[in-house]
Amino acid sequence: MLTPVPDYLDEVLDGVRDDHAGERAAYIPELANADPDRLAFALCMLDGTTYAVGDADVAFTIQSISKPFAYALALAEHGLDAVLAKVGVEPSGEAFNELSLEADSRRPLNPMINAGAITVHSLLDDEQVRRGFAAFAGRDLAVDESVFASELETADRNHAIAYMLRNHAVISSSPVDVVEGYTRQCSYLVTVRDLAVMAATLANAGVHPVTGEQVVPRWVARQTLSVMTTCGMYDAAGDWFTAVGIPAKSGVAGGLIGAVPGKGGSAAFSPRLDSHGNSVRGVRIFERLANDMNMHLMEVPPPARSVVRGQRALALRGEDGEEVETWLYELQGSADFVGLEGLLRNLDRNPPQTHEVVLDLTHVHEVLDVGRRMLLEGARRLTLDGHHVTFVDPEGLLSGDEPDALDVGDGAEAAVVRTC
Amino acid sequence: MLTPVPDYLDEVLDGVRDDHAGERAAYIPELANADPDRLAFALCMLDGTTYAVGDADVAFTIQSISKPFAYALALAEHGLDAVLAKVGVEPSGEAFNELSLEADSRRPLNPMINAGAITVHSLLDDEQVRRGFAAFAGRDLAVDESVFASELETADRNHAIAYMLRNHAVISSSPVDVVEGYTRQCSYLVTVRDLAVMAATLANAGVHPVTGEQVVPRWVARQTLSVMTTCGMYDAAGDWFTAVGIPAKSGVAGGLIGAVPGKGGSAAFSPRLDSHGNSVRGVRIFERLANDMNMHLMEVPPPARSVVRGQRALALRGEDGEEVETWLYELQGSADFVGLEGLLRNLDRNPPQTHEVVLDLTHVHEVLDVGRRMLLEGARRLTLDGHHVTFVDPEGLLSGDEPDALDVGDGAEAAVVRTC
Amino acid sequence: MLTPVPDYLDEVLDGVRDDHAGERAAYIPELANADPDRLAFALCMLDGTTYAVGDADVAFTIQSISKPFAYALALAEHGLDAVLAKVGVEPSGEAFNELSLEADSRRPLNPMINAGAITVHSLLDDEQVRRGFAAFAGRDLAVDESVFASELETADRNHAIAYMLRNHAVISSSPVDVVEGYTRQCSYLVTVRDLAVMAATLANAGVHPVTGEQVVPRWVARQTLSVMTTCGMYDAAGDWFTAVGIPAKSGVAGGLIGAVPGKGGSAAFSPRLDSHGNSVRGVRIFERLANDMNMHLMEVPPPARSVVRGQRALALRGEDGEEVETWLYELQGSADFVGLEGLLRNLDRNPPQTHEVVLDLTHVHEVLDVGRRMLLEGARRLTLDGHHVTFVDPEGLLSGDEPDALDVGDGAEAAVVRTC
Amino acid sequence: MLTPVPDYLDEVLDGVRDDHAGERAAYIPELANADPDRLAFALCMLDGTTYAVGDADVAFTIQSISKPFAYALALAEHGLDAVLAKVGVEPSGEAFNELSLEADSRRPLNPMINAGAITVHSLLDDEQVRRGFAAFAGRDLAVDESVFASELETADRNHAIAYMLRNHAVISSSPVDVVEGYTRQCSYLVTVRDLAVMAATLANAGVHPVTGEQVVPRWVARQTLSVMTTCGMYDAAGDWFTAVGIPAKSGVAGGLIGAVPGKGGSAAFSPRLDSHGNSVRGVRIFERLANDMNMHLMEVPPPARSVVRGQRALALRGEDGEEVETWLYELQGSADFVGLEGLLRNLDRNPPQTHEVVLDLTHVHEVLDVGRRMLLEGARRLTLDGHHVTFVDPEGLLSGDEPDALDVGDGAEAAVVRTC
Repeated sequence: MLTPVPDYLDEVLDGVRDDHAGERAAYIPELANADPDRLAFALCMLDGTTYAVGDADVAFTIQSISKPFAYALALAEHGLDAVLAKVGVEPSGEAFNELSLEADSRRPLNPMINAGAITVHSLLDDEQVRRGFAAFAGRDLAVDESVFASELETADRNHAIAYMLRNHAVISSSPVDVVEGYTRQCSYLVTVRDLAVMAATLANAGVHPVTGEQVVPRWVARQTLSVMTTCGMYDAAGDWFTAVGIPAKSGVAGGLIGAVPGKGGSAAFSPRLDSHGNSVRGVRIFERLANDMNMHLMEVPPPARSVVRGQRALALRGEDGEEVETWLYELQGSADFVGLEGLLRNLDRNPPQTHEVVLDLTHVHEVLDVGRRMLLEGARRLTLDGHHVTFVDPEGLLSGDEPDALDVGDGAEAAVVRTC
Repeated sequence: MLTPVPDYLDEVLDGVRDDHAGERAAYIPELANADPDRLAFALCMLDGTTYAVGDADVAFTIQSISKPFAYALALAEHGLDAVLAKVGVEPSGEAFNELSLEADSRRPLNPMINAGAITVHSLLDDEQVRRGFAAFAGRDLAVDESVFASELETADRNHAIAYMLRNHAVISSSPVDVVEGYTRQCSYLVTVRDLAVMAATLANAGVHPVTGEQVVPRWVARQTLSVMTTCGMYDAAGDWFTAVGIPAKSGVAGGLIGAVPGKGGSAAFSPRLDSHGNSVRGVRIFERLANDMNMHLMEVPPPARSVVRGQRALALRGEDGEEVETWLYELQGSADFVGLEGLLRNLDRNPPQTHEVVLDLTHVHEVLDVGRRMLLEGARRLTLDGHHVTFVDPEGLLSGDEPDALDVGDGAEAAVVRTC
Repeated sequence: MLTPVPDYLDEVLDGVRDDHAGERAAYIPELANADPDRLAFALCMLDGTTYAVGDADVAFTIQSISKPFAYALALAEHGLDAVLAKVGVEPSGEAFNELSLEADSRRPLNPMINAGAITVHSLLDDEQVRRGFAAFAGRDLAVDESVFASELETADRNHAIAYMLRNHAVISSSPVDVVEGYTRQCSYLVTVRDLAVMAATLANAGVHPVTGEQVVPRWVARQTLSVMTTCGMYDAAGDWFTAVGIPAKSGVAGGLIGAVPGKGGSAAFSPRLDSHGNSVRGVRIFERLANDMNMHLMEVPPPARSVVRGQRALALRGEDGEEVETWLYELQGSADFVGLEGLLRNLDRNPPQTHEVVLDLTHVHEVLDVGRRMLLEGARRLTLDGHHVTFVDPEGLLSGDEPDALDVGDGAEAAVVRTC
Repeated sequence: MLTPVPDYLDEVLDGVRDDHAGERAAYIPELANADPDRLAFALCMLDGTTYAVGDADVAFTIQSISKPFAYALALAEHGLDAVLAKVGVEPSGEAFNELSLEADSRRPLNPMINAGAITVHSLLDDEQVRRGFAAFAGRDLAVDESVFASELETADRNHAIAYMLRNHAVISSSPVDVVEGYTRQCSYLVTVRDLAVMAATLANAGVHPVTGEQVVPRWVARQTLSVMTTCGMYDAAGDWFTAVGIPAKSGVAGGLIGAVPGKGGSAAFSPRLDSHGNSVRGVRIFERLANDMNMHLMEVPPPARSVVRGQRALALRGEDGEEVETWLYELQGSADFVGLEGLLRNLDRNPPQTHEVVLDLTHVHEVLDVGRRMLLEGARRLTLDGHHVTFVDPEGLLSGDEPDALDVGDGAEAAVVRTC
């Protein structure tokens, strides 16, 4: 059979194809004359699989979508404190091209407005940007020299911003050089395939889903996605987050990316923009997907089933061949704080009535750090209460490859077996 | 055994107890003279279990934490469009008490600043607020009449805001009455237990975790949490979201709530405030918890294991007693878009080699809408390819209580059995 | 013969009568329904003579034209420093109804915007305003109770401003009471005759030109006219001052006053307003008058003729009957700094060649303080050089009614005679 | 004798010499290291006489004092409308270096803030500035190349402003070139002598008091002085105008000029600046002078004496040798509107009782245009009433050099004689 996912994405594209609202960016000929009917979408899963529909191989300039990636590179290069000293993380409630410096510190309010993005760029050199973007995309990206030249010629506002930044000692290098570099950064050519995989890299804790490279550290990806959440869509950040509910960034050439942490990255392309500078059809595509796919981060999932799948007393045959009365807890799902809080509470309110206690992880598919700590603490407390605890851990989620016993603290141990 | 959760929370409180930074709110005697050492925390799970440590039974005024709940009540009462016509959802990057009206529409920028909250209050009457808050808290709340009187006496700025709102026709009722009602709304007495359960109600899609009442519709909870995400922490919204990463709201009496959709609600109380008006120790508690519990919404979880737990050919004995070669897919975890995309891709790339195909949901613990659609579409396509599809669905996740066959479209059916 | 002045003023009115541009103020019925064709002008000379043409006896509400007079009354009542501590004197470049508080002090920027005018009003009680306005107008003024009631009903913005002022501790009394009083202050009924005489009182150093009452001290009139110069015409202050060049104030009912220090006061009335809130035809009338009458304060007068009308040697018959060779200086015009600087320079460069020196003030029509000091200092120096100085001062400008000798310092005296 | 004026000015300087308040501008070494004790003052009368005391020959850079002169040159070059299309005339209430563009038009608010001054400079070329400044000063001025280079190096804010201006299409030339030219304009070296004579040229209707050159047209001088009145002292314009009351402009090197239309120009120099960027001792000098000299434009002069010095009936011997009963009006002072309004009113209320009417201008020292029109209209009306009018006009104020009869309209004539 053929997977229906591309058909679904095609259907989503068809649903917005006839929307001709909005206008192309008009300030340079290259954007003003772009084919306004171009329409594309790509979705990159965290295993690297990419679905792409529409004009998915048409290249366009990355523009402001470069901002989160340059921010991530600067964070990785200089550390959080050094970057925060230069650029804040507060939403400005203003359009992309406002100065928006903090009243006291004169820092640009955030790295998604031009003042912040120019400052971020000043922390990198052109080669760092080139190589970093290549790492995010998984391939070398070319600069559209024509767009670059046109943008530079009309970059009066960015020059004004850069000079004002140097005036306030936010940047120290040549404003003309910084604007040139920043303009080049915005002129890289990408397709929705590139952008989806770049977004997926952020959604994948900084690890490129295809090349496997750790492009930026995990904390950098988290920081970058956080800032995209509150500041990514300019003065429409609130509208976007209430309606779509995922971190995102748009560019004036019509690109738009979204990333769902731990799920995937996606990108749309359609040149006509709304009054906020966001792609009209791009926004509609994401609204549809958010609705269809339950991707809104504020969407409460259906009540999770208890991590305790079942508990029962049974007679297990022990090593010595004798039957032993045993209290068995079958766990399931994700052993996170919420799940294990329930298990521990259960052990508290309904203490096991047998010496032997078995915690069966067969149906558990992941154990987070917090979960590991909670399981071991539970085992420790049971042991202190006089129980003997055995984990059934066929896949070594808790115990790793080898051990058949786990130190649970206070000198106590829990047994580990592969099968019940 | 005793669950270690309260011990952990006690430890968290101890970790911040000696932090005496910040100042109590000084504008009314009741707040200026509050015991600055009070410290409390509560955590409410979605099954209603509440952990509470420290001064968990000390009541304080809800203040600005009333804003998201009043917003939710107004949304439920009037619908999204009517409320959006009056109050926007954009972060203002400004302090709580700024006017922050949109340049064109003169709408307050969002419901978390005073101008927006006063407007929201004007859409409700005092009784609606009283009953709504009681529903959120699961008990009747009392007004601190002394705080109410003091606040009203010093409510010059709110009066100014309310008159300016009527001047711009954002509100139409008496500014004096609206400010009185809004001040009363801020003067309800709560404990961290109350706040945690109120936050949990938002995190639980509007359903009170103890009473089970649908206090506000699911979409209202989503909208409210979205606005808390971008606007909840005033001009420190970006700092908060990068550091803690969950929707939140603070109040000038020292309260602070956080909600994680689908996980739980929590609340801290400590009267000393930082320069943004947020509780110093409250913020630190949440930072610790976010870190310990992997609750940051931009934190990418460990790579989820594939929804396809295993696939293998086996000979099953059919109804007629004969062995039938069958291709079995064991699924696990949450059958959401990301998981099922993998299954469908797998079915595409490695088509089953037998007529019979079994999709075993035994280890699946939830099926979202999008997952149900994808499973049925997969079954339809397999059927069209000539396969016979059987779901093993012991808990009726897909099929509900009764049916043993599912219509998958185009007249095709898939079989459903309870056990493999 | 009949003086042509009224004919000229009639002609000025006729020149603008057909201009129907602009709109009446619309926020209360009384102003929205005012007869838009009303047109009046009055001119009050400093001897109290008043010319009035057009609808000169139609009463309208004084509105913002009350601001300079209330400011003057507050200055007279509390002194300069006390008033400056509450309200600044800086132009705001903003419309009349902006808050415009100073960034640091939170003082309203000036007394001509509402925030400043409300603050000024808070320094007075209603009776002080009533009596003060009566003193300025030379008659009791009545309040238009209907306008007062309507204004008060729509005074949301002023209430907002007043509450914000109390919030910043700029005012301490009840915002509701202050706005009521301020609204009453704006509702006094005046005619252009009243306004012209009120303006003339300011132009006359605070002395009412008809009653002769010193309504406010000289320094108060100067301060008030100064603030009218830079702040009187809202955000059109610069346009007005470049085009018309005299201190002025407009009101939303269509009134407009101008004052030329030492010359006179005038007032126009025509209800249709331009986008700044200034009377369209009123502004045109003043532009015409400024042009015709050379009243623009930046207009350089024709080169003044030297204060030294002539100087010559002549033989005067002394007291003893003998002829004495004498050097005579005939002075003329206004003996101010500029004039006497020239005389003193002349005495320096071309010292008198005789023992006797006569300074003839017969043709001098005024001697300022500075002139008196300079004349005496000149006489002193001449005396020290060995000359004998005699002032011819038929009208006692220098010497007052009686003396025939003036102490010029260092024990020297100059003689004074009435005729040459 | 020696004129006491220099002694007086020395005394004024001594009065402020010990005031060491304020700080030198610190942004370039040349200003930061300027001798802070320098103190100078110069006063230029409209006949070209200049008094200079203190360090009157020390040159310093003109800085922002160049703004009004460049504005005047641009007005003269392009006309009022073309310049107003680029730069407004409204006070901004802001510091000198704010952007302060009008909300709608994006024009800089006025030519005294940097944004406006840079725009004004863009309307001129360097040679026009050089020659224009030379004409104002009456000598070629040199550029301080060291200051110029330092200023250019730290001109980040001005570059930012210039780029923003081109972004808004307010200027069209190269921002870098405009800032270079503007910085050069600010780097011209001047002494207080130069500045006093430059100010005097504005005060003298554009005519240089020494060279007699009409440097800029009369209307340009008026426009420039008007803008200096409302915008010349940055955000202290109101303080200045209430205290000193004359058009002025300050520069960051410590210069400060003031001009009194029709009276003279003056300049102070003292490098220490107050928080507004105005010379501390310079401001104090002007405050003293304004007080001593009655120069405040809002200062009401002592009640002017009536233009009618006297009126009496007398028997004059006519041409035929017979005595003729005649009504004689002796006029005095300045025959301006205010004066002649009184004469005409007098003729109205107390009509002359004889056929012959004589208006004696012997003691009148100037007749303005408006006065001439009024005298002729009075004569016309008297003639129509049947009188025969004779002007005694020994200096030809009314009649010029020759005529012995004046056409007063309607075919009527008045006689003119030289002596009574």
